[in-house]
Amino acid sequence: MNDTFLKACRGEAVDHTPVWLMRQAGRYLPEYHAVRKNYTFLEMCKTPEAAAEVTIQPIDILGVDAAILFSDILVPLEKMGAPLEFQEARGPVFLEPIRSRAAVDKLVIPDPEADLGYVMDTIRILRKELTGRVPLIGFSGAPFTLATYLIEGGSSKNYFQTKKMMYTDPQLYADLLNKITDCTIEYLKAQAAAGAQALQIFDSWAGVLAPRDFAEFAIGYVKRIIAALKESGVTVPIIYFANNGATLLPQSLESGADVLGLDWRININDAVKVVGSRVSLQGNMDPIALLLPEEKMEERIANILNQAKGARGHIFNLGHGIVPEIPPAKAKFFVETVHRLSRKG
Amino acid sequence: MNDTFLKACRGEAVDHTPVWLMRQAGRYLPEYHAVRKNYTFLEMCKTPEAAAEVTIQPIDILGVDAAILFSDILVPLEKMGAPLEFQEARGPVFLEPIRSRAAVDKLVIPDPEADLGYVMDTIRILRKELTGRVPLIGFSGAPFTLATYLIEGGSSKNYFQTKKMMYTDPQLYADLLNKITDCTIEYLKAQAAAGAQALQIFDSWAGVLAPRDFAEFAIGYVKRIIAALKESGVTVPIIYFANNGATLLPQSLESGADVLGLDWRININDAVKVVGSRVSLQGNMDPIALLLPEEKMEERIANILNQAKGARGHIFNLGHGIVPEIPPAKAKFFVETVHRLSRKG
Repeated sequence: MNDTFLKACRGEAVDHTPVWLMRQAGRYLPEYHAVRKNYTFLEMCKTPEAAAEVTIQPIDILGVDAAILFSDILVPLEKMGAPLEFQEARGPVFLEPIRSRAAVDKLVIPDPEADLGYVMDTIRILRKELTGRVPLIGFSGAPFTLATYLIEGGSSKNYFQTKKMMYTDPQLYADLLNKITDCTIEYLKAQAAAGAQALQIFDSWAGVLAPRDFAEFAIGYVKRIIAALKESGVTVPIIYFANNGATLLPQSLESGADVLGLDWRININDAVKVVGSRVSLQGNMDPIALLLPEEKMEERIANILNQAKGARGHIFNLGHGIVPEIPPAKAKFFVETVHRLSRKG
Repeated sequence: MNDTFLKACRGEAVDHTPVWLMRQAGRYLPEYHAVRKNYTFLEMCKTPEAAAEVTIQPIDILGVDAAILFSDILVPLEKMGAPLEFQEARGPVFLEPIRSRAAVDKLVIPDPEADLGYVMDTIRILRKELTGRVPLIGFSGAPFTLATYLIEGGSSKNYFQTKKMMYTDPQLYADLLNKITDCTIEYLKAQAAAGAQALQIFDSWAGVLAPRDFAEFAIGYVKRIIAALKESGVTVPIIYFANNGATLLPQSLESGADVLGLDWRININDAVKVVGSRVSLQGNMDPIALLLPEEKMEERIANILNQAKGARGHIFNLGHGIVPEIPPAKAKFFVETVHRLSRKG
């Protein structure tokens, strides 16, 4: 197996910098649309054969060094008892936002195999189909990010309802976050048991918090997840990605993650100054920079590789998910260029 | 006049920390709604008596140390030739996004007194009405932020079109930005001539740029504006606010601004480490933290005051605009608490 990705997560020597793309199984690929047209988005998450098929597409098409499970961070919340819809115009919508004691108390901790078996089945299919190729990354949302969707009822402009609960009813907020945390621990344990070879925790909205609020209201839950996973014997690398989290790095470092993901707003060499050799780093080209002419993209990739030289390990990635408008040939050039420029003479 | 704000901008000694709130003339105030109900948003910007009236409201109601002109960063763009609408659901919309050579070439540089006289008239009215009270801040958008609205046609999720132009047609991008820059120089000069006693440049979306792109595609235009203002004899303090710009501070420092605004994502003491005593700092409580119970808000204000002790000067503010859901009494408590805690012996 090409285990370059796993080695870089652990800070071991590699013969090239591994690379994958957030949302690499996604709408920029015509092959994805060919499968997707037969299902709604949620149906596809819940159909293991289809989810596995699109998971593998970028391995074949782009030559990336890791596969990431096709799913969505919100699917476990549905099974906590929060009805979820994906609407064309608004994106994910929770029809009954969770803002009261009664609503929090009603949430349940799902049994991953019984309630979210389609995710574990997808992982099992993928491990069979990927054998000898690349490692498979499982994932979840981070509790703060998941909570924002439940509390706001969907995406949000300024996270007013979430912060209102944090600031005015911290006990209710903590109870909600602890339930989500318990759910996430079981969910990620089950993914590892089913065969996930690394786990990424996406904190997509962490960057809306002041450092002191991130410390008080967000990172502790991530730390508890990672500690519980390690205590339960999960040994796969764990990646924590706090999007827009440049000022949150010192605290992210205390999460216990093996790898920290970086968005494009921070120079990797500045991140290395904060994290030293305690973790590996993943990132971080601006996803829209995939539009750059080849020569300029190459220069940008070289610059990031160079910045990352001081890191314990480096997994190349975008700073956020690839967007639907990117021509696949550009993504392919990106992957090839990372490989070519980083390969040791 | 209470010139505490101006002194803090210049780094001079003050007997209390001055404070104002971004969007302090806004929808959280019933008194604002009482005026606003007679106009559309754009009409109100263009009616000097009404704009002046709401500008003064927070001075009376909250006791802030500065007034900021009621207007919108987008109004000069309309006079560059880009028809603008404020739609209830979408916010500001430019009906014909600027994405081609022809569209850029068609834009004109407005004459501020002839084309935007209502802004200068508002300033002149305000200077009369404010005499002996607090200084008046004028403002504009920064060229990058203004360009995103023109290119995207409104607000945006990932600034795809803007970055596409930056990355694939840098000459067209530069020509557009230079036109916006020329317009902004004249606009701010006219505001100062009409009586604005400080000028703030809002770079609301700078934080979507990687540091290298901010250097190449954004900060240079701000620098050119500030240099042109100073060369033309404008001596009022200039504040540059790059929202979500923690990693952009070293470059923001080179803008020539007297004050840098900070959003809530960065601890002020960390900002001081970057800027030293070269500029004053403005900010930076999370706007939603105005919901905190009084005791906790007081602790948070004390913490920010304490962090800012190393700064050359400090103007207290929120890290972004106050939102409509905040009770005015909370905003009043915020202002009073900043004054009380910062007042010397």
